[in-house]
This record gives sequence, C-alpha cells and structure tokens, in this order.
Amino acid sequence: MSSELEKQVQELEEKLNQLQSRQANDQISIIVFSGELDKVLAAMIIATGACAMDMKVKMFFTFWGTTLLRDKNKSVKGKDFISKMFGFMLPKGSSQLKLSKLNMCGMGTEMLKGLMKKKNVASLEEMVKTAGELGVEINICQMSMDLMGFKKEEMIDYPGLKYVGVGTYLADADESRIQLFI
Amino acid sequence: MSSELEKQVQELEEKLNQLQSRQANDQISIIVFSGELDKVLAAMIIATGACAMDMKVKMFFTFWGTTLLRDKNKSVKGKDFISKMFGFMLPKGSSQLKLSKLNMCGMGTEMLKGLMKKKNVASLEEMVKTAGELGVEINICQMSMDLMGFKKEEMIDYPGLKYVGVGTYLADADESRIQLFI
Amino acid sequence: MSSELEKQVQELEEKLNQLQSRQANDQISIIVFSGELDKVLAAMIIATGACAMDMKVKMFFTFWGTTLLRDKNKSVKGKDFISKMFGFMLPKGSSQLKLSKLNMCGMGTEMLKGLMKKKNVASLEEMVKTAGELGVEINICQMSMDLMGFKKEEMIDYPGLKYVGVGTYLADADESRIQLFI
Repeated sequence: MSSELEKQVQELEEKLNQLQSRQANDQISIIVFSGELDKVLAAMIIATGACAMDMKVKMFFTFWGTTLLRDKNKSVKGKDFISKMFGFMLPKGSSQLKLSKLNMCGMGTEMLKGLMKKKNVASLEEMVKTAGELGVEINICQMSMDLMGFKKEEMIDYPGLKYVGVGTYLADADESRIQLFI
Repeated sequence: MSSELEKQVQELEEKLNQLQSRQANDQISIIVFSGELDKVLAAMIIATGACAMDMKVKMFFTFWGTTLLRDKNKSVKGKDFISKMFGFMLPKGSSQLKLSKLNMCGMGTEMLKGLMKKKNVASLEEMVKTAGELGVEINICQMSMDLMGFKKEEMIDYPGLKYVGVGTYLADADESRIQLFI
Repeated sequence: MSSELEKQVQELEEKLNQLQSRQANDQISIIVFSGELDKVLAAMIIATGACAMDMKVKMFFTFWGTTLLRDKNKSVKGKDFISKMFGFMLPKGSSQLKLSKLNMCGMGTEMLKGLMKKKNVASLEEMVKTAGELGVEINICQMSMDLMGFKKEEMIDYPGLKYVGVGTYLADADESRIQLFI
C-alpha cells in the first residue's frame, strides 16, 4: 500500500518538474521591426518600464528597427554602392527617426520632441542609455545588417550588444511570458 | 518512512502552489498603438471575439490609438496652441479613422465601410458599444493623453474607462495568456 | 494517517492535471495583418525558423495579409464591381508586394529582392513553398475574403489551407507559447 503511494508521489514529482522546466520566465521579448520614432519610443518605454518592474527584457532589432542603433558619429569606408545608398537613405540613429504619422516634413516630429521635453518624458537617446544601465538586453538581427549593408563598426556602443539570428530570438521569446512585435 | 513521504508530499504541494500562482489567466491583453481604421477594427474584432469565448480582455490604448476614444460631440476649451493643433489634425473618434492603405482621399475608407454594412459586419462604433456591454476593459495611456494634449472630458463615455501608465499595462500583460501589439 | 496522505496525494494529482491541461503547447501563433513585403518576409522568416526548431506554427492571414496568398496565375469571373476594383488595386501574390518604406516607385523593392538573392536569403515565393513543406499551418480569415471580394478559387494551392473565423485564431493563440501580430 505505502509503496504504491510512494510510486504515485514519485510520478507526481516527475510531472511537476517537467511542468516547471517549461514555465516561462518573468521576461518580456520585443521585436523592434519598425523604424519610426513613435513606435521605437513605445518599444523603449515598455522595455524600460518592464525593467523597473524587475522583468528581464530581451529586444531583437530587425529590418528598419536597426536604424535606431546606428551611431551618427561613426562612419565606415569601403561599402559597395547599394550599401552606401541604403546607408544614406536610412536614418542614422535615434535623433533622425521620424513619426509614422503627422511627420509633415519633420515639423510634427520636432513638435513631439518639444512636447516630450516640456512634459518631462525622457528623449529616445536618454531611454536607450537608461535601457543599457538597467540591463535591457539588445540583440540585432544579423540578416538585416547584411541586407542593409550596415557594419558593426557603425553601430552604437551598447553594453552586451549581440548580432544574432532568428533562432536566438525564438529561443528568447519561447521562454518569455510576454512577446510583442512592434 | 511514512513521515518522509509526508514531507515529500508537502514539498510537492508548495512547488505546485507556486506554479499555480504564476499561471496566466484566461485573458488577452491588447495594446492599440495604431489609429488606422483597419488596425483598430482588427483589434476590436479580436477583443469582442475573445469576450464571446469567455476570455477576459484588457485593452491599452496609446499614441494614435487614443484617437478612437475621442468623442466627436465633446469639445474642451482652454487648450494651449500645440494641443489645439494636435486636436485639430488628429481624427476625432471612430467615424473619422482612415484606412492605412487604399484610403484614396477617403474613397477607399468609405468603400470599406459600405462593404462592412452590406456584409453585415458591425461598424466600429457598434463594436466599441458591444465591447462595453461585454465587459472589455479599456485603459488609456496617460502619457499619450498628456503628449497629445487630450483632456478626459473630451473622451467617450465607456464603462470603467481608466487612465493608466505603462506599469498597469505590463501587470495586465504579465497575467495574460495572449499579448498583442496592434 | 496513511489514508489522509492518500487523499492529499490525490488532490495534488488533480491540481497538477488541471495545470497540465492549461499548459501552452510548443507552438507559435502569428497574425499576418500587413501586406507589405518587408513585414510578410519577417513573418515567414519567423514561421519557417520556428518550424526548424520543432515548434508548431499556426499563421492567420487577415486584411492586407491575405494578398500574399492570391495566385497571380488564377482569376475568377463573375465578381461584382467593388470586388473587381479591390482585386485590381491590391497586389496579387508574393511577387507584387511592396516595401512599407523606401519603395520609391518599386525601385527599393527590387533593390531588396536583388540583395536577398545576392546574400542567399530565400525569396518570399520560396519561403511560402518551404513553409508548406515544413508543415506551417496557414489559415485565412473568411471575413477578410468576404470584405475584399476574394474567392477561394483565386488563392494559391497550399497544403491544408483553411478559411476560418476569429474564433479559430483565438483558440490557436490561446494554446500557443508565443503570439505575434505582424
């Protein structure tokens, strides 16, 4: 009788351990696909907010999102023609991103930036800096770098910045409680 | 022997309770960031559909999404110049939202609205009303209200409407099984 | 004493089974709402990547996303005027999708396609084919088909393609570990 119960308890324990091993972490995974000021702002507000609530944050910057992470003070030589063109046409870092709406030749974008300052909302530059200090993990999609012809040497200095593939994103997302595509 | 088993069972129970306390609710959390008719429609269709399936629904309206919740019959005096401009340029409620594509000076938008009527798809106005009746919880991002200069007095009457920060969104998302950014 | 323990173990087992039944599958659920080349590419890269990692993938194509699944070699007669107009104005399949940015009258789109070829990234056409072979499940939103006046006979041949409502999407999303809205 007792040995039967022991067996039953052992089975429960195994089941429970298996459940526990598949339990998502207190972690949020954000794909930043868009390169517009408003969307990237939303992503950074959520990311730094989650950090402040002790969640782990993993961001994956891909396609137009990668433009946020270009350093306007760095430039690279020896690019081919198409990479040069992409490099020229796409925004170079947070200060050059534009609104997805009401941009109005930059007037709307400047208006929003002015408002943010007035209302004491941190600027995008400050938010990226804060994210780094808070430990927000930033990964950049290697394939997007290749396609747009961006080089690692022209990206911003960010603690622990990594260049990864979609597999790394998926593994991170899979162990997160929250996943967003922005 | 038996007391050892008892101890083991007790440990299992603690582990199990801990797992249970972290189990996500049968709940969906939707950020409505976009203010285009088609995207907001998608959000409301998912929200009311989830309610019909007995899921709890928590929506967080931010940035352009907040324009859906402006009441076209309400207006506020005493706004500063920039708030007035934003108020003027942005759509005022569901009837003024436009398609993200094929808008064609409003023709495409009207065409879609005509089609929805013909095919017996509820209009956006009706969907917001239904959402209120079904108990869809709507939260508005306070920071977006501040930035765009919107006042609470110009927003629609919606049961239980609340003005919250990103922390409330994150807490809601964290306890949800499904999270979307629209 | 022992029978009390037995009862306790039985209760634990029930609790555990209930938890297990609500455990999300190793599955990713993707809504493809957008019809732009870059966003659809991102969706397909994530989908095929997840398959390669042995996750189950369920995609739900709605609104503009449905245009990816139109077959450019098929056409349907007997449509009403508005359906014909939508059919004419919207892209017909993967080869006609455009970039959301830098399209520049098609030049940017062709540039990206050229780059993808050069960098050995599979084309969108190839990715859809691979997705079918890998077993990515594709569902199309019936309501979107109705609104845009698309007929089943003009959609691509894809293994197991189904036309479903938002309820099916929600059920799939609810049992997935990862949900994205693209």
